[in-house]
Amino acid sequence: MTFLNYVKEKQEWFNYELEAIVNEFNSPKRLKESMLYSIKAGGKRLRPILMMAAYEAFRPIDKKVVHPAAALEMVHTYSLIHDDLPAMDNDDFRRGKPTNHKKFDDATAILAGDGLLAGAFHVITTSNFLHAEEKVYLVRELAQASGPEGMVAGQMLDLEGEKKSLSLQEMDQIHLLKTGELIRFAIRAGAYLGGAIPPQIEAIDEYATCLGLIFQIQDDVLDVIGNEEKLGKPIGSDEQSEKSTYPKILGLDETIKKKEWYMEKAALALKTAKVNHEILYDFIDYLGNRDY
Amino acid sequence: MTFLNYVKEKQEWFNYELEAIVNEFNSPKRLKESMLYSIKAGGKRLRPILMMAAYEAFRPIDKKVVHPAAALEMVHTYSLIHDDLPAMDNDDFRRGKPTNHKKFDDATAILAGDGLLAGAFHVITTSNFLHAEEKVYLVRELAQASGPEGMVAGQMLDLEGEKKSLSLQEMDQIHLLKTGELIRFAIRAGAYLGGAIPPQIEAIDEYATCLGLIFQIQDDVLDVIGNEEKLGKPIGSDEQSEKSTYPKILGLDETIKKKEWYMEKAALALKTAKVNHEILYDFIDYLGNRDY
Repeated sequence: MTFLNYVKEKQEWFNYELEAIVNEFNSPKRLKESMLYSIKAGGKRLRPILMMAAYEAFRPIDKKVVHPAAALEMVHTYSLIHDDLPAMDNDDFRRGKPTNHKKFDDATAILAGDGLLAGAFHVITTSNFLHAEEKVYLVRELAQASGPEGMVAGQMLDLEGEKKSLSLQEMDQIHLLKTGELIRFAIRAGAYLGGAIPPQIEAIDEYATCLGLIFQIQDDVLDVIGNEEKLGKPIGSDEQSEKSTYPKILGLDETIKKKEWYMEKAALALKTAKVNHEILYDFIDYLGNRDY
Repeated sequence: MTFLNYVKEKQEWFNYELEAIVNEFNSPKRLKESMLYSIKAGGKRLRPILMMAAYEAFRPIDKKVVHPAAALEMVHTYSLIHDDLPAMDNDDFRRGKPTNHKKFDDATAILAGDGLLAGAFHVITTSNFLHAEEKVYLVRELAQASGPEGMVAGQMLDLEGEKKSLSLQEMDQIHLLKTGELIRFAIRAGAYLGGAIPPQIEAIDEYATCLGLIFQIQDDVLDVIGNEEKLGKPIGSDEQSEKSTYPKILGLDETIKKKEWYMEKAALALKTAKVNHEILYDFIDYLGNRDY
């Protein structure tokens, strides 16, 4: 199976399961509609698919990974809803559709985000496919990755950084927290659930960290040289804002070199971990060379 | 020891532990300050103390209850921060101090709330005093009580209800979800951790449900006949708003009778459960007849 077929197959399976899970919440109509609106808005489902791929590196795919992957995507979706709010990034559109607060209102969007965040931990702890130790591992790691030492910390630093020019180190730190932590969780938790032993999880963790940075660097690159039609959003917006980006600090050539260096490092990390799952190697290329 | 001394002693112990727990988060300075600001803003610590009292009905108090109680207060605090936002209730003051978004800004307040919510689940799952089964129970029940079928559902219904006149049943439903669920969690989780068996937990659950309604009814009563100085806020604000309240629907006399009926029902539930912990009986009086 080609890599893109693999992704497509996993997306379809996961979308079906995710919608069913969120649909099960017995919530007031408007709250449920608001949560489902953003859950159904799509996206690449990168994090859940990475979790499944890491799982498959150690064990054939089964239902065990469904609830953790759904919880992860719920947390990612909550963060997008809150990030788009007028008080934060103030975005009216995401993936070509009105953002949650534009479709509903600010209050509903805040509550939909809160509901998805708390709901994610409910989904993990009520799963029939996980035993108690696994649930504790997943809640602890997901709360760590998404909470005040993880993604939320990254969002705080990102907001503060908008007004000043950042060093390369400061920018790496923001991305490692804001997007990197959930990507690390995806891969670590997938490997853990698949039965990886601790040294294997630590080795695959370096791969995950590189992948998060590759993803972000390519985001910055596409804002300079991307195709607006493929991206579905205007390019050059970073240039106009005061936001620090890799191309602004390093120049475009050095930024691309940096990305390629992380791509090599990610592949080496997999090799060192003796993880021979082709799909994980393919992800390096996919994220590093994507054009949308 | 008198009831008020009991409450004061527990408050002091708990405040010390809670601040230490939140202070341990390795978060960006501004995020940490914002979380600690609302955590330190005080309040009666009603929910954690109810949890401790329910625990003590079955076993002498010890450190086992500290992290669950802290997580509960973190969730309660996050809900106040988000509730006060301009997009929600738009309150500038709480307990005589500027609300979180007035002291910091809207974006920081959103993130502080998000951080406290995710952080609460981290506090439970990293506790050294709980085994895996207890952690799963606590995360599941807290996520249920605070999430899209619990407190967040209540907040959604509350917002929608502001614009129309509600039936008694609709108003009960909002309060059961918005404030009742966390109070139920406090008491159920305390009894569970203390070693109560399932039928005891179910019996004490009725006490908890009554307590939540007593709390809310007295809130409405105080807005009509309270002492502004003792309350620390102006009275009569419900009368001026379109908000549905018990006195508006039932009249003041019937409202007070309803409260007394729940107070008797709560005491009977304790008796039926054969829970002979005096402090739990005292709480009925305390919440039903409080003047602040």
